[in-house]
Amino acid sequence: MMQGKASIKFENPPHILGAASVVGEKEGQGPLGQQFDVVSQDPMFGQDNWEAAESSIQGQAAELAIQKAALQKEQIRYLFAGDLLGQLIATSFGLMKLEIPLFGLFGACSTMGEALSLASMAVNAGYADYVEALASSHFASAEKQFRFPLAYGNQRPYSATWTVTGCGAVVLGKEGGQSRITGITTGKIVDLGVRDSMNMGAAMAPAAADLIMQNMIDFNVTPEHYDKIITGDLGTVGQQALLTLLKEEGVNLEGQHMDCGIEIFDPEKQDTHAGGSGCGCSAVTLCAHILQQIESGNWRRVLFAPTGALTSQVSYNEGQNIPGIAHGIVIERV
Amino acid sequence: MMQGKASIKFENPPHILGAASVVGEKEGQGPLGQQFDVVSQDPMFGQDNWEAAESSIQGQAAELAIQKAALQKEQIRYLFAGDLLGQLIATSFGLMKLEIPLFGLFGACSTMGEALSLASMAVNAGYADYVEALASSHFASAEKQFRFPLAYGNQRPYSATWTVTGCGAVVLGKEGGQSRITGITTGKIVDLGVRDSMNMGAAMAPAAADLIMQNMIDFNVTPEHYDKIITGDLGTVGQQALLTLLKEEGVNLEGQHMDCGIEIFDPEKQDTHAGGSGCGCSAVTLCAHILQQIESGNWRRVLFAPTGALTSQVSYNEGQNIPGIAHGIVIERV
Repeated sequence: MMQGKASIKFENPPHILGAASVVGEKEGQGPLGQQFDVVSQDPMFGQDNWEAAESSIQGQAAELAIQKAALQKEQIRYLFAGDLLGQLIATSFGLMKLEIPLFGLFGACSTMGEALSLASMAVNAGYADYVEALASSHFASAEKQFRFPLAYGNQRPYSATWTVTGCGAVVLGKEGGQSRITGITTGKIVDLGVRDSMNMGAAMAPAAADLIMQNMIDFNVTPEHYDKIITGDLGTVGQQALLTLLKEEGVNLEGQHMDCGIEIFDPEKQDTHAGGSGCGCSAVTLCAHILQQIESGNWRRVLFAPTGALTSQVSYNEGQNIPGIAHGIVIERV
Repeated sequence: MMQGKASIKFENPPHILGAASVVGEKEGQGPLGQQFDVVSQDPMFGQDNWEAAESSIQGQAAELAIQKAALQKEQIRYLFAGDLLGQLIATSFGLMKLEIPLFGLFGACSTMGEALSLASMAVNAGYADYVEALASSHFASAEKQFRFPLAYGNQRPYSATWTVTGCGAVVLGKEGGQSRITGITTGKIVDLGVRDSMNMGAAMAPAAADLIMQNMIDFNVTPEHYDKIITGDLGTVGQQALLTLLKEEGVNLEGQHMDCGIEIFDPEKQDTHAGGSGCGCSAVTLCAHILQQIESGNWRRVLFAPTGALTSQVSYNEGQNIPGIAHGIVIERV
């Protein structure tokens, strides 16, 4: 079951029984717009503040994924969930009403990878018949948390990314569905000294490179083993850094690499600079697009590896670096 | 293996191979002072700021527990770790140098329970030979994060608790040691409407009551099954609330209940009002005191159930309630 230094190959690969994506208007206008389950025209999602708005989309995505899996919430044994906000308040207030035992997780924008890893471990081991993994972000709650008040209208450099408003939720179980999680690779913290919060892609690329290399070493495969190797939110600047770092290791990823942050917005029309980011970016792209590609037979096997930048407004203001982490999930067609 | 709604009974109970506690001066002067591994006289732990100080104690406790387990850090397959700060920066910067795959966790002050739960699940399932679970808090980084600047010197009501400066770390493995984790009960979010951030004990008591009831239902036991039922940081006010809530359910816990927050400080001499709190409170009390009581044979079986208050400065300022969560661990003498 243990595979190499940091990976697990599951004996009873958990199946993906339902997945739901709830996003904001801007995400709905992007290239994947038609594939999301719910696109809201109201950035507040009917709530009084940005944090409550994010909570609202977590709750909505969680319930919709359970419904799409044809289950009742009482059948879900554990939630594995997180968000980008201090003390995970989007998760706490969004999932409370479900009354399901909860493991709160923080892996910055890698959280969907962390959640799917632990959720898969639980199902494979027989700890649960059904579990749910989810992660969210909201443009406005994230800007308020990490950068400037929206009303300040600051200019953003071209290396900056745009935090996705959305939540992706996946229900896993022992059998059923058309895709399954056959293995995972768990990331460690990697710090190459980047300090620019407007260039998160560069900060996260070393962790993505480390995770992808570790996955290939642990499972003894080459990039061609996967139809796609998918990072979360490196964006265009981070993608170049990733490809360069891997090239230095003798690995050419150009044919396989895809980044959710690059896919989710249209760079010509949507003015999002380097792409999308946030926990929600990889989570909704997984639920709306990646799983659809696998289930339709276009892709047979992918490595889904969301990346996170481990920073806070406090650590940033204290002059700390922005280390990264990534968590890899191998998803295959049944 | 699954037991009732929210519990697991392990087939291969993970053994506790090493535990370490690193605390500050005030904790060293308290009733448990002689039992901690490291007591520092420097609240900054040689660092430049409070967050770096907390990172420093995480790193120190992590390494000391590995050393006490007679292992090398390369043998630890996964870290399960968290803290109270936004985006877990004490964890990120404290554990980076270990270069061990990391699952970042947030359960507020229940984090040590959450970490031990997931760590035990990993070892029992055969995903790892050795794992480490840890959690920290620091009085000054927590006050800065949640309340007032220290220099403001605000008065604290008697229901307030004092955040413990400390980190507790536990290394788990398949065999060895004198205590082991035989089961877990995973908590859900419970909100009875408390909004007073100076009375966290009352906010967390409903979650503690819910968890303890669920544990007894799932394992079909009464309080006497345990030599002690130990909450994390309810303090004296929260303890009364817990005992009252359980009495309403027909359960008398008075003979069994112990709270780490009540044990760690001397209410007469240390001016900490309702007691100690923070992730570090239950973590260091476990590592320094509870495990020692089990290993010396004074206690044969305990339910260790740290409790967390799911709040942030943002949710508090927005007028949200303070929901709670608890995670229970059954620890038995080998």
